[in-house]
This record gives sequence, structure tokens and C-alpha cells, in this order.
Amino acid sequence: DILERPEGLELGGDLREVTIMMSDIRGFTTLSEHLAPAQVVTMLNRYLGAMTDIIMSFNGTIDEFIGDAILAVFGAPQRREDDADRAVRCALAMQGAMAAMNAQNLAEGLPALATGIALNTGVVIAGNIGSERRSKYGFVGHPMNVTSRIEDHCRGDEILISDSTLQQLRGDYEVSDRRELSIKGIEQSVVVHRIRERNNV
Amino acid sequence: DILERPEGLELGGDLREVTIMMSDIRGFTTLSEHLAPAQVVTMLNRYLGAMTDIIMSFNGTIDEFIGDAILAVFGAPQRREDDADRAVRCALAMQGAMAAMNAQNLAEGLPALATGIALNTGVVIAGNIGSERRSKYGFVGHPMNVTSRIEDHCRGDEILISDSTLQQLRGDYEVSDRRELSIKGIEQSVVVHRIRERNNV
Repeated sequence: DILERPEGLELGGDLREVTIMMSDIRGFTTLSEHLAPAQVVTMLNRYLGAMTDIIMSFNGTIDEFIGDAILAVFGAPQRREDDADRAVRCALAMQGAMAAMNAQNLAEGLPALATGIALNTGVVIAGNIGSERRSKYGFVGHPMNVTSRIEDHCRGDEILISDSTLQQLRGDYEVSDRRELSIKGIEQSVVVHRIRERNNV
Repeated sequence: DILERPEGLELGGDLREVTIMMSDIRGFTTLSEHLAPAQVVTMLNRYLGAMTDIIMSFNGTIDEFIGDAILAVFGAPQRREDDADRAVRCALAMQGAMAAMNAQNLAEGLPALATGIALNTGVVIAGNIGSERRSKYGFVGHPMNVTSRIEDHCRGDEILISDSTLQQLRGDYEVSDRRELSIKGIEQSVVVHRIRERNNV
């Protein structure tokens, strides 16, 4: 597995243009408070399992699960011309899968979940990051931090994309609700848009 | 390795009282901007390697590297009576190791790094979290989120601990600079303290 190399660490690091995805279940911890630990893990793993399958089917690279958050990139280790479009279509498929999953949750007395998904495109450093004891193919750079801040602004069921992602898209989507976010550590404000399936009436 | 089980997923999840550590290099991305990608990875891996060795020597469990951030816990999978004290002594050792590492950085034309470390103690759900394709021993719960917010308030070279960690300590440390942090999603403010080695004059 190229993504986990417990046997050691190659030096180096490449600049890669990638579209970064961060998703997070809105209020997951609060929703979990009155559930048994095993129920929380069941609910979380059902969600992460469904999302993992979708991300992998769109050739996304899952970097991490961090609690209920997912960090993935499109464009590394392998770059493709449609990285940004695949990331958007993946995010739409992830949101589209929530209804069936929530129906199952509700049938089992578990709460419905709503996820927010942020997409941002930029140049990051990709490499084997970590120690000799523990390293992984990972990413650093401002675009990672920016994606995390965009994610903070996502509401449930929403996909927000930055201008840099929008500029790379070739597909036809419904783009609305332009917002400027000011982000700590970044001088210029970041422009984001809500993106949805084009509703062909 | 109990921490990475790519072969699949055990269901379940336990409530565990743990002391959570989050560390983050102040301004790492900005410091990296004028360096070559290979230099950034070298500098980051030198730091993560040194910190990993220290955390493991104090029996901490490293959950994740997220860029330059480290998430670790003390008290799971195995609980010990001195989890909070070990976490504090580990954080002090991590800060203590920075000077030698920075001397090496400066000798190689790399910038000096300053890390902030947050510690917080609370009950979390520990379990194999993820999908059938990819799971790991991980943690969810409010104390995880609180630790991340405390980390946002850490300055370079600083260790902040929450009141809940302070209450568990048996060792003799210098505790100062009490602050109340208001944290989104948490009703009560979180009280934190700066902790340092007791300076025996």
C-alpha cells in the first residue's frame, strides 16, 4: 500500500496541485451524547464505510479519518485532468448517499446525520511524512489549512468549493451563494460558493 | 500492531478516560513558504521523528499526524494511574528537545520551530473507527474537540493544560497564567493553565 509505509520513510517531497476534500458530520459529538459507545461506533463506521467506498470509486486518496472528519485529496499520488470535477462529483455522491443511510439510522433508533463538505484546489507538498517508526503519504501547505477553515463554514447537507476549485471545473453544476471568508493566517479573503447538482427541469 | 488494522474492523467501542495531547508547530506553513519541498519534508520529519520517540518513551499512543500537528493520547489502549502526569512530563520533554533540534535546523539554514502543546483529560469513546477497508484504533468525543480548541490558543514553546488534567496531577510543576476559554459548541468555558518545569532555585 503506497499510503501506509510502516517500514520506513523515503525522503523527498513534491509540489502537487490537488483538490482537497474535508468533510465533517455537523454536531456529531452532541448527537452521540445519549447513545451507548457501541452505537456511536456503529453509526460512525456505517457513515465512514459508505463515504470511503464513494471516495475510492472516484479515485480519491483518503489521507485521514479524524474522529468523524474525513480528509481526502484528488490529484495525488496520481494526477488526472479531471481531479476537480471528480472531487465535486464525489462530494455530490456523498451527499446523495446520506438519505438512504439516515433511513437505516432512523429505523434503528439512531439519529439522522448531516455532513458538510469543503473542496479547495491548490499546490501542496506531498511526501512521506512522519518518523522512521511511522510515516504515511501525506500533505502540507496553506491549501490544506484553508480547506479546514472552509469546512468550518459548511452547514449540514452543504458542499462549499473555493474559487480555485470552481475555475478548474468543466462539468455543469448549479453554483450559488457566493461568500467571502476571512481566514486567520491568510491575508486575502477566500471566496467560496455552494455547489449542487444542476436541476434539469 | 493494535493501532492499525487494515484487515478489517471489530465492532464495539469503550468509554475511556484519557489525557489527550495535541501539538502544532506555530506558523509552520508560513515558515515553509520559501523552502524547497524536500527541505520542508526533511524539517517536518526531523521534528515528527524526535517527537514520536519522546511520546513513545512516555507510553503515549500516537493517533495521527495531521500535517505538522500530532494527536496522541495517554490512557488507551492501556490505562495507567499516572496517565496525566506522563502526558505532562512528555510535553515538557518535547519542549525541552526543541532547542537541540533548532540548533541543527539553523546550522542547515532551516528555520527554528516553536511548538504549542495542549493537554486535556476526559472520557472519550475509543474503538476501531473507520470502514471495512480502512480502520484504526481511534477516539471520538467532546474532550477531543476541546483539546483541539485549547491547542488553537497555545503560543509557541507553551504547554496549556485544562483544569481536568491539572486535577489528576501528582507531580510538582509550575502552574501559572490561568485563562478561561470560550469554545464553540461547549456551554461552559474551559479553564486552562500554563505548565512548566518547577524551577528549583
